[in-house]
Amino acid sequence: MADEIRNKQVLLKNYVTGFPKESDMEIATSSFKLEIPESTQNAVLVKNLYLSCDPYMRGRMSKLDTPSFVSAFNPGQPISGYGVVKILESTHPNYKKGDLAWGFTMWEEYSLMESPQLLVKIENTDLPLSYYTGILGMPGMTAYAGFHEVCSPKKGEYVYVSAASGAVGQIVGQLAKLSGCYVVGSAGSKEKVDLLKNKFGYDEAFNYKEEPDLNAALKRCFPVGIDIYFENVGGKMLDAVLLNMRIRGRIAVCGMISQYNLENPEGIYNLTSVIGKRIRMEGFLASDFYHLYPKFLGLVVPSIKEGKVVYVEDVAQGLEAAPKALVGIFSGHNVGKQLVLVARE
Amino acid sequence: MADEIRNKQVLLKNYVTGFPKESDMEIATSSFKLEIPESTQNAVLVKNLYLSCDPYMRGRMSKLDTPSFVSAFNPGQPISGYGVVKILESTHPNYKKGDLAWGFTMWEEYSLMESPQLLVKIENTDLPLSYYTGILGMPGMTAYAGFHEVCSPKKGEYVYVSAASGAVGQIVGQLAKLSGCYVVGSAGSKEKVDLLKNKFGYDEAFNYKEEPDLNAALKRCFPVGIDIYFENVGGKMLDAVLLNMRIRGRIAVCGMISQYNLENPEGIYNLTSVIGKRIRMEGFLASDFYHLYPKFLGLVVPSIKEGKVVYVEDVAQGLEAAPKALVGIFSGHNVGKQLVLVARE
Repeated sequence: MADEIRNKQVLLKNYVTGFPKESDMEIATSSFKLEIPESTQNAVLVKNLYLSCDPYMRGRMSKLDTPSFVSAFNPGQPISGYGVVKILESTHPNYKKGDLAWGFTMWEEYSLMESPQLLVKIENTDLPLSYYTGILGMPGMTAYAGFHEVCSPKKGEYVYVSAASGAVGQIVGQLAKLSGCYVVGSAGSKEKVDLLKNKFGYDEAFNYKEEPDLNAALKRCFPVGIDIYFENVGGKMLDAVLLNMRIRGRIAVCGMISQYNLENPEGIYNLTSVIGKRIRMEGFLASDFYHLYPKFLGLVVPSIKEGKVVYVEDVAQGLEAAPKALVGIFSGHNVGKQLVLVARE
Repeated sequence: MADEIRNKQVLLKNYVTGFPKESDMEIATSSFKLEIPESTQNAVLVKNLYLSCDPYMRGRMSKLDTPSFVSAFNPGQPISGYGVVKILESTHPNYKKGDLAWGFTMWEEYSLMESPQLLVKIENTDLPLSYYTGILGMPGMTAYAGFHEVCSPKKGEYVYVSAASGAVGQIVGQLAKLSGCYVVGSAGSKEKVDLLKNKFGYDEAFNYKEEPDLNAALKRCFPVGIDIYFENVGGKMLDAVLLNMRIRGRIAVCGMISQYNLENPEGIYNLTSVIGKRIRMEGFLASDFYHLYPKFLGLVVPSIKEGKVVYVEDVAQGLEAAPKALVGIFSGHNVGKQLVLVARE
């Protein structure tokens, strides 16, 4: 019988209103038996290697009055989210000791999963494992589904991406270039704008914080207008975009991070423009498109290996650093995909 | 050579801001030769029988800073719009004297059209000719395109229509019933709500002016939510609808009449809900779907003849009554499709 160990965890302390703070979470330890309880079938015991910090997690930190596509976290309990795990023990037919997988796990060092349906086994282990919290995981599928499936891009179209150096945005920009589109991105610092132009191959980029008039900035970057907008931020940016869309433009609504921490969301005033310009605006979730994951890997894995697609990560070291890392994404502190290294393989 | 006659016209006096007033237009007469000028090929001389009052015309009464899908009216010139005309003389191969047609014409008694590409010949003359300003014309195609082509309804789905007794709304409601949907409409008076329930076959209806809480009204009418929203009004109604859409709901954005006369449009605050619920919101114009007009007639003409589909019109008598009729639709004075009888055949 296995010894009990101390399992370090990140707990939500209380439901959050407004911007989340590090102090809304706490590091705790609980005792944990490093084994699968006897007669528990279809279970895996995992060591968490990488944890992903994603904007949608903000919604789970609030008490939800109405049902959402994800449930709220429970105060006093560990946070959960996407991560990369190593299988330590398995009674599940699909997994054996030593396998690697990505999917839904807990913010703790070790986790017991009694029904690991939300895990995907990692087959390509010759790429950085951390990429499975990003370009090879949910953010990658989000970029692919939103850009290719929702927007059906055509060569030569004009594409705009907000939060363009983020976990999803940097992939969208590169997918757009691979599709022969003209692509402009915006981000919130000079460093990020440099990344957009020099690392991800955006044709043009701007720092939205230094633009007093977003409408004018978009008119400067898109003299003939925008065919596809990949929406990550919402609020004033969306309003400016609506004034600059072309006829039959498409807006894939991936997220609206500028709104998640506001007590009262900002109003959108330019929606009447969707009529005359026949704009389609569509919300989507990557989870509806996971059947396309093999197709997506077939596109992106060779592109990464050939150096045609790159991925920039911002890696926080250790579970203790996780609360600060998660909080930071809502102020744009991260440069590239924010994740947490819990343990090396 | 024909005598000159006096041709009565409705002119726009000045560009309009805010709600249009009767005094923004004036009745005038100009001298007019009742013949096609010699050597003018492909022209028709028409007598205008019915003129259509449509919400989109409000946009044309403003000075447009940015190009729109229709051009602005010119102050001092006659207003133009959809109407039903009788051909008095023709040098166009498709038309002969006595033919009837619907399409774009001028707000005047007689018009000379040098390139009548925007006319459609009327083949079914055994239905009321005025219907070609409504259910058999642009509003009919708008209802059909928005409901069937944009929303792809399925039997049993929950459909909500605002401005539900209007030119387009009353058709959408009846198309939804023909498709086996559950359909609820809203309108702005008891008389209109009665029409919705007793004339057009809506399953449920409410007077939005008597609902202090639109969200609560929609929750009452749609306990499990809305699959399809046919958007005619915008503003607060759209915001309430966004809170009540079901997963993979569709919003066909036909118009936002509540916003057209506001100096500053109302904000929309609940757009983040499109993400988790994967809502598709799509603007459209009937003019993109005119290739489906024969298919639409094939559906609707027999339905009208069999009494399965009805159409309620509000007919203003005479060109002098046209300014008041047009102004009235922005305050909901019309009951059913507002049109102007200029002359009987």
